[in-house]
Amino acid sequence: MMASKITGIYVPTLVPFDERGDINETELRRFLSWLIDKGVHGLYPNGSTGEFVRLNAEERRRVVKIACEVAQGRVPVLAGAAEANVKETIRACEVYLEYGARAVAIVAPFYYRLSPDSVYAYFEEIARNSPIDVTLYNIPHFASPIDLPTIRRLAEFPRIVGIKDSTGDMSFMMRMIQAVRPKRPDFSFLCGWEAVLVPMVAAGADGGTNASGNAIPEVMRQMFDLAHSGRFEEAMKLQYRILDLFDTMLNPFEFPDGFRAAAEMRGFKMGRGRQPSTPAQQVNRSSLQSVLQCLLSDFGVVEPPAGGCAPRTGNLQKDQIGQIVYEVLHTLEERGVIWKKP
Amino acid sequence: MMASKITGIYVPTLVPFDERGDINETELRRFLSWLIDKGVHGLYPNGSTGEFVRLNAEERRRVVKIACEVAQGRVPVLAGAAEANVKETIRACEVYLEYGARAVAIVAPFYYRLSPDSVYAYFEEIARNSPIDVTLYNIPHFASPIDLPTIRRLAEFPRIVGIKDSTGDMSFMMRMIQAVRPKRPDFSFLCGWEAVLVPMVAAGADGGTNASGNAIPEVMRQMFDLAHSGRFEEAMKLQYRILDLFDTMLNPFEFPDGFRAAAEMRGFKMGRGRQPSTPAQQVNRSSLQSVLQCLLSDFGVVEPPAGGCAPRTGNLQKDQIGQIVYEVLHTLEERGVIWKKP
Amino acid sequence: MMASKITGIYVPTLVPFDERGDINETELRRFLSWLIDKGVHGLYPNGSTGEFVRLNAEERRRVVKIACEVAQGRVPVLAGAAEANVKETIRACEVYLEYGARAVAIVAPFYYRLSPDSVYAYFEEIARNSPIDVTLYNIPHFASPIDLPTIRRLAEFPRIVGIKDSTGDMSFMMRMIQAVRPKRPDFSFLCGWEAVLVPMVAAGADGGTNASGNAIPEVMRQMFDLAHSGRFEEAMKLQYRILDLFDTMLNPFEFPDGFRAAAEMRGFKMGRGRQPSTPAQQVNRSSLQSVLQCLLSDFGVVEPPAGGCAPRTGNLQKDQIGQIVYEVLHTLEERGVIWKKP
Amino acid sequence: MMASKITGIYVPTLVPFDERGDINETELRRFLSWLIDKGVHGLYPNGSTGEFVRLNAEERRRVVKIACEVAQGRVPVLAGAAEANVKETIRACEVYLEYGARAVAIVAPFYYRLSPDSVYAYFEEIARNSPIDVTLYNIPHFASPIDLPTIRRLAEFPRIVGIKDSTGDMSFMMRMIQAVRPKRPDFSFLCGWEAVLVPMVAAGADGGTNASGNAIPEVMRQMFDLAHSGRFEEAMKLQYRILDLFDTMLNPFEFPDGFRAAAEMRGFKMGRGRQPSTPAQQVNRSSLQSVLQCLLSDFGVVEPPAGGCAPRTGNLQKDQIGQIVYEVLHTLEERGVIWKKP
Repeated sequence: MMASKITGIYVPTLVPFDERGDINETELRRFLSWLIDKGVHGLYPNGSTGEFVRLNAEERRRVVKIACEVAQGRVPVLAGAAEANVKETIRACEVYLEYGARAVAIVAPFYYRLSPDSVYAYFEEIARNSPIDVTLYNIPHFASPIDLPTIRRLAEFPRIVGIKDSTGDMSFMMRMIQAVRPKRPDFSFLCGWEAVLVPMVAAGADGGTNASGNAIPEVMRQMFDLAHSGRFEEAMKLQYRILDLFDTMLNPFEFPDGFRAAAEMRGFKMGRGRQPSTPAQQVNRSSLQSVLQCLLSDFGVVEPPAGGCAPRTGNLQKDQIGQIVYEVLHTLEERGVIWKKP
Repeated sequence: MMASKITGIYVPTLVPFDERGDINETELRRFLSWLIDKGVHGLYPNGSTGEFVRLNAEERRRVVKIACEVAQGRVPVLAGAAEANVKETIRACEVYLEYGARAVAIVAPFYYRLSPDSVYAYFEEIARNSPIDVTLYNIPHFASPIDLPTIRRLAEFPRIVGIKDSTGDMSFMMRMIQAVRPKRPDFSFLCGWEAVLVPMVAAGADGGTNASGNAIPEVMRQMFDLAHSGRFEEAMKLQYRILDLFDTMLNPFEFPDGFRAAAEMRGFKMGRGRQPSTPAQQVNRSSLQSVLQCLLSDFGVVEPPAGGCAPRTGNLQKDQIGQIVYEVLHTLEERGVIWKKP
Repeated sequence: MMASKITGIYVPTLVPFDERGDINETELRRFLSWLIDKGVHGLYPNGSTGEFVRLNAEERRRVVKIACEVAQGRVPVLAGAAEANVKETIRACEVYLEYGARAVAIVAPFYYRLSPDSVYAYFEEIARNSPIDVTLYNIPHFASPIDLPTIRRLAEFPRIVGIKDSTGDMSFMMRMIQAVRPKRPDFSFLCGWEAVLVPMVAAGADGGTNASGNAIPEVMRQMFDLAHSGRFEEAMKLQYRILDLFDTMLNPFEFPDGFRAAAEMRGFKMGRGRQPSTPAQQVNRSSLQSVLQCLLSDFGVVEPPAGGCAPRTGNLQKDQIGQIVYEVLHTLEERGVIWKKP
Repeated sequence: MMASKITGIYVPTLVPFDERGDINETELRRFLSWLIDKGVHGLYPNGSTGEFVRLNAEERRRVVKIACEVAQGRVPVLAGAAEANVKETIRACEVYLEYGARAVAIVAPFYYRLSPDSVYAYFEEIARNSPIDVTLYNIPHFASPIDLPTIRRLAEFPRIVGIKDSTGDMSFMMRMIQAVRPKRPDFSFLCGWEAVLVPMVAAGADGGTNASGNAIPEVMRQMFDLAHSGRFEEAMKLQYRILDLFDTMLNPFEFPDGFRAAAEMRGFKMGRGRQPSTPAQQVNRSSLQSVLQCLLSDFGVVEPPAGGCAPRTGNLQKDQIGQIVYEVLHTLEERGVIWKKP
């Protein structure tokens, strides 16, 4: 029996930490369960958003195990399986099959920038030895790029069933689909750049693995459903609406701290990340969070800040300053120093 | 009276040269006239495709003059007006107004990579002094980038009426539209990367300035019309069909020689470009041209090569070799050395 | 008779502009003459520092003509000869020979990024047709790179007599010398990155084409002489001393405005450059100039600012603030608001 | 008592693997011992050359333990200590102190590209908590860059005692020395790019951490000693002589396979690396190895290949072909097919 094609919104899930910096398992379970309740199509632990490189090998396994236990077949799990070398990566594939994952996602080797031939050789060895379906993970900003000829060659292995591409490059997606789909209709193309998810789906992509799913899973689901069912114009409106939110979570924060901040606002104790930050960064983060809360409140998923939201300009720096002024004014009103406009 | 918004397919027109390397004016007129007959919405002389940096100042004027004369109001002319410095650029704006151009397109300063502030200051001076409408031209691969805050600020000048963006970056286009359109509904967004023209139009872009218009003006027009009228699915099919052709004209050749080769096949004597090439490059070009002719023949706009077309693989190097083999076999058949399969 | 090898400090000369933005010929002549008096080995008009791309073709000729007239054989002139295309570049070579230039310097084609083969073909055509010696100009930050195999091949033409390399890449310089010098002992290697001039000379480079020569010609000459005569340790001390000055002229200003500001302090009316600037940039520039004056005064070539110089920290932003404070204090003292420490 | 400054040639040691891909401990011990016998100043396990990212956490510890055991105080050990997160990195620092390492080297966080503030915060936490001296490791090609202001700030922690910089950027080295040395004369500057080691030492660098030390430890030692004792001209001759060897080990191979191949020729069973390769890569590698053997034989440290060495051109591709021809001819001579030139 053939496994079903990987489609829809897969959330590269965040990892909550407790005060000692360890994985907060209770919160992780509650968070993953909430994501499923909100309608996401699948869970994707150990992605870049899940900070897999900041976990140790044992923690990576634990995270996948928990995801599989929480999912319990309600949704498929796509498990990030990259380890220090090809042998240990293949061993992780074996373990994740046992845990019940639907497939694994494997990023191209990073740190060293490998040639296309070496990237091919790496995935070829995995394709020949993995007992579980494999999706390629192309994120040239962080890891060795997987170029088009390499993708075409790797798509000849039945074990390789898809690619997650995080470039946001529309023409690259189209070239991949054109090169692979005729021979591999079951091969799945996932867009890892939610700023352009709707156009990508319109061009034939099968879904997305989107960090924003941690913040607004219900919106991502709705947006995908609209695009997937051909209601392109409505989908595009949502696409435009999430743009500022995505940019705010992505750019001014160190990745993935903006997404962590948003998940906090949705009611989960994410804890401090594992990457230390300076006091100046922490101060900055707090004013960013206020803007973020305003953006999230536009979708009706959180309350606006107590002080209200300043009109947004689309220029994040201005928005931050405007928002601080708004909140200062609110505090002064509360203290009776100034009076509210009637 | 307000000038109409710039929309549709503007062709950044090639320049034919004669045997001495001078502009072949007769052929240029014939070519521009043919483009108009094929339905393009506007002419755009002195773009990157028009090799404006390889023309001298006098030649650049001559090219615009000819375009205006040929257009004669049938279609608007968007004239590339960048000169060595802001003073001479403004002088070119004045001259192109006299010639009858609809607007000018001005690339950000190149050679030096300027800061956003300097890019702003450059266009600000032009916006304040140009007597003709100005479109910005953003092509960060070749010139100083025009970033989003700069575009937002420049859109405050009524004289600046649009931007041509050649990044092919879908999310950048959406951010520009989101930042500028609410206040400037008349501001025009043109996509300079035809590989993604249809999704760009679906996301709100007003048209394209596309080198491929020199090769397949009627196809570009049809594709735009389909997308513009909301027949997105059909438009997308054409979008996929032009992908290989665009890549073949763009990548293996030095720009814009692939587009020049295609225009030759459409019946125009383009002559040798002004950039010298090695004998090895010339040999390579001849096998590329054969693949190009096959791709063009798919659209029914040229005949296939005499020897026929090898099945295409989407891998250009393989396609080149396959095509050479096909033509060698054909020649051997013609000479009676081998016999055709019945 | 064989022309002598190009060695020593060639100054890529700045161009003074008058209030209308035209070339200030009187000042240019006075400036060039001063450079020669200060001991530079040669003049190099129409380099990047000379803003050749912001001059028109006629102005570029005029600048070379003036340089040759001022030099009058006292020092050789290396004339930047790049024009819009290979034909016009060769024509400029002919003209500059007539003017009495020693050789021309030709930057690789810019705007388009050409392949190594095309860069070769371009210079090959020049090498075969130029009546004057040619030096290659490699500045990959601004123009198509000239890679090592291309340099090796081009060094087979006797007409090509040297290369100016502005990468500041020490190992690239050594690879060039190793590849070319055994067969071409007359071939000249010039370093266009004065931050490492001394180590480059120690590794075998023949000289430099250094924008700093416009600010401190006598220091550059002295530094070269020390390095060239093997007094490496003393040369290295000067090398360290010019580092902050070079960085301050180069980085916070738009190129080449920092060098223009320094030449102003040396007593020449450089005028405003041709690239417009915002009011914010102008304010910033004025505090930078004060730091620059302090740095120049360390070499005894200008007076320190009236208010004195704040202790430098090597952190330019801090130095700017410190310097402003110093000058404010001085003004307050002068106005009798505060009293000087006794 | 103050620990001595870190100076001289530290070899970032390779890791031999056995046929199962496990660490070949016997060979590793033999190799490290040989390096010490050949005169290197220190061992540096778990560098990029030591493929620390392809080892698991346990293996990284084992490698350092072995290095400390072999060194036994004869030479200091600089132990690469980067782990998945700051907490585990600090734990590794504790362990490596126990093992007897002199100091640790810690690369900036990789995969994610962090901002300067985050890089600072990361090293600050380590500086405050590590019980062993720390050297920074700057390799922007692979990891987040450590910029100059960050280095200046981090040099305020006494626990941070040096930096290894692998950029090969001469002016960056000089800027670092200028910024830090006046306040921290004990701070060590190590150059990780042996192509320019001699000029770096001449400019004040204290030593190098050089992969070539695995191939030619005695030559690296000699070159450093010459430069360090001021015999710059002789040092520079060696510097030129190692250039081709370094380039051949570095560029055409995937890093660090060229260095592994050279260590094999010096008599150590390095085994296959952990990164898989294609058959085409393996064929290519075998012809590269032959060129490499010729280059090594120039230093008298290995025998030339049986078939002799073709004259070298400095163009690696030509050299490879030339060398293959040479060896084919030799084989034909041996088989009596052709006769040797008398």
